[in-house]
Amino acid sequence: MADVMPATRQISITPISGGITAPTGFKSSAVHCGIKAKADALDLAVIAVDTFASIAAIFTTNLAQAAPVLVSKQHLDVSHGVGCAIVVNSGCANACTGQEGLANARRMTEEVAGALGCPAEQVFVASTGVIGVALPMDRVIAGLQQACSSLAHGKGSDAARAIMTTDPFPKEHAVRVTTPRGSFSVGAMAKGSGMIEPNMATMLGFLTTDAQATPALLHRALVESARDTFNAITVDGECSTNDTVFAMASGTSGVTIDEELYPAFLDGLLSVSEPLALGIVRGGEGATKVIAVSVYDARTVDDARQVARTIANSPLVKTAVHGADPNWGRIVAAAGRAGVRFDIQRVTVRIGGVLLFENGLPHDESAPKAAEILTRDTVDIEVSLGGGDASATIWGCDLSAEYVRINGEYRT
Amino acid sequence: MADVMPATRQISITPISGGITAPTGFKSSAVHCGIKAKADALDLAVIAVDTFASIAAIFTTNLAQAAPVLVSKQHLDVSHGVGCAIVVNSGCANACTGQEGLANARRMTEEVAGALGCPAEQVFVASTGVIGVALPMDRVIAGLQQACSSLAHGKGSDAARAIMTTDPFPKEHAVRVTTPRGSFSVGAMAKGSGMIEPNMATMLGFLTTDAQATPALLHRALVESARDTFNAITVDGECSTNDTVFAMASGTSGVTIDEELYPAFLDGLLSVSEPLALGIVRGGEGATKVIAVSVYDARTVDDARQVARTIANSPLVKTAVHGADPNWGRIVAAAGRAGVRFDIQRVTVRIGGVLLFENGLPHDESAPKAAEILTRDTVDIEVSLGGGDASATIWGCDLSAEYVRINGEYRT
Repeated sequence: MADVMPATRQISITPISGGITAPTGFKSSAVHCGIKAKADALDLAVIAVDTFASIAAIFTTNLAQAAPVLVSKQHLDVSHGVGCAIVVNSGCANACTGQEGLANARRMTEEVAGALGCPAEQVFVASTGVIGVALPMDRVIAGLQQACSSLAHGKGSDAARAIMTTDPFPKEHAVRVTTPRGSFSVGAMAKGSGMIEPNMATMLGFLTTDAQATPALLHRALVESARDTFNAITVDGECSTNDTVFAMASGTSGVTIDEELYPAFLDGLLSVSEPLALGIVRGGEGATKVIAVSVYDARTVDDARQVARTIANSPLVKTAVHGADPNWGRIVAAAGRAGVRFDIQRVTVRIGGVLLFENGLPHDESAPKAAEILTRDTVDIEVSLGGGDASATIWGCDLSAEYVRINGEYRT
Repeated sequence: MADVMPATRQISITPISGGITAPTGFKSSAVHCGIKAKADALDLAVIAVDTFASIAAIFTTNLAQAAPVLVSKQHLDVSHGVGCAIVVNSGCANACTGQEGLANARRMTEEVAGALGCPAEQVFVASTGVIGVALPMDRVIAGLQQACSSLAHGKGSDAARAIMTTDPFPKEHAVRVTTPRGSFSVGAMAKGSGMIEPNMATMLGFLTTDAQATPALLHRALVESARDTFNAITVDGECSTNDTVFAMASGTSGVTIDEELYPAFLDGLLSVSEPLALGIVRGGEGATKVIAVSVYDARTVDDARQVARTIANSPLVKTAVHGADPNWGRIVAAAGRAGVRFDIQRVTVRIGGVLLFENGLPHDESAPKAAEILTRDTVDIEVSLGGGDASATIWGCDLSAEYVRINGEYRT
């Protein structure tokens, strides 16, 4: 992931507690409304701004987009990037649910808008869980009334738990960014792969900040920060129907983001996105190890990213790492089929810094040392293509029998 | 896979025994030379023509190409498509072995050429097994002398066993093609995924025919038949450093292939390639089921193939099939991320003919019937994109915990 060294020496970034409600101007609530069968399991959250906020979002590139994605995209167009709340449920993805699903997603935004007194177009919606199943709307509406009446500052951690499916741990982070022109905060929460029933892994992310930023600038920073964080991870190469990352800027800190402060703002977004993205990989279905694949000396960043992604998604590389096998041959072969041109004779492969392949020849004497490194819970794979100065890192995880078990069990 | 209905009613295709030595003009031998540790395990085979033959080949598209691939490509150029023998070993891929590996691959062709009295450039070589390890050349040379002195007609089945690594069963097939202008035979053997040590899966195929065909026509038919057979299968989406399919035509039947007989010739190649390609999938590492993914009503064949391949390689689809879970949502999601444009509202998904998704909505009432179909050892997934008349089929297999076990065990 990108280096988060502040752009100038006058800027400092410090971790703080509070997640999405660490920045001022944001309230949240989380309730159990009954989408999840388990009693008291939080399954519905609302994030609301005290007044209003700029909002930006990035969505799944899958052609099969869930109802909440379609509705949120439409609201983003109509509202011109002004948001007052986001509602999110877990336990049901509201995907492949046809016109009824679209109506239900709209209804969720209307209920929240009614309770908060804002236009429905300024309310956004996200869902995660099993697909092809309709939301239990009676329960959802009752839950939304309860959630909207219990909004409070400082309760971000409850929301981070409410968006979990079978994520093994909640994922939230916040930082304080201090600049010569004042300080502001950035908070975030995310959920990753793992479903209440074995189904598609959905990635959802929510970023908040009390900096003031136009919707356009917020969108630019979100896209740029996601490129090296949420869009640089893979659990199994799958892209869900519901993947969404929202960012909201309340402006209540009084610090306005312009070109001068943009690098500090971007650093703030990166600082909260990185640990969450890494947490999604570490909590990936069946994952026992994080694999950081870095490709150096490529002709372009796209080339580097493509090779790194092919290696990170290779089932043979993932199983080799799972078994602590320093099988550089699989890494070379995955790089070779990535569809990127390079000279295989100039490629070097390292695991955790240990050189295993160079000038077309193996260094098998180093295999025992590399095998020892592969027993750690984070493994670095470093590949130089030897023909350029571009680089990229993709974060993945190993492939275990547990992944097969989780995803191979019959749903009903 | 393509329909193999003969092009005209005067043409018939009948299965015969004998594998690669079913066509006249070909001898073979197989020996244990000691590349494989297990005593008496066949690990070296030679296929030789009585006089000489046209030869064509297709090779891995991986940038990391093994020494035998590089040497065979060079010989194909220099010999202008005339071949007298192919030597193939299992137990060692001779890949990522540098200059020494190239010299060893050349040496293998020279030894066979010396024994048979033909130019080394007319001898071709293929290897499969663990990569990054040098061939034990003393044993290989002794084995080659033994193999060249024991060449005989009718021993193709031994060769089919000698090229196996951990393939669960040998794969060979032969047919007799009868045309109004005479009859000829086509034989073939192949090996698939599974290594003596967990490593890259290499696909090797060898086709023989006693039809007479120019190298150019032979190449055209090989490429065309492989497109819908050997190139339409996937075990884990990996492409090896050693993948190769050779075709040799001895001409001893006296039947000359021209444009008129080309369709019958292509049908003959398809008839032997199809069961072998399917056998590779069925014998794939950890596979318990064959999955035939057919995509219909696409705008182009490439679109259909891309969507089918994405579904067949999806770990979530593969694990769902393994668990007999009729999870059409994963099929829709995989299609949606294939990078092909289509209207998701017009997509239909069937498993074994049972409609599960149509007009953007599920047919969950059919799930139990589809689940029953998923317990069979061959499963058909049929997807209509609803926007064209092109179609394609890709054959894959399920993903089991056994795949993880085979590929996750440390090599040493």
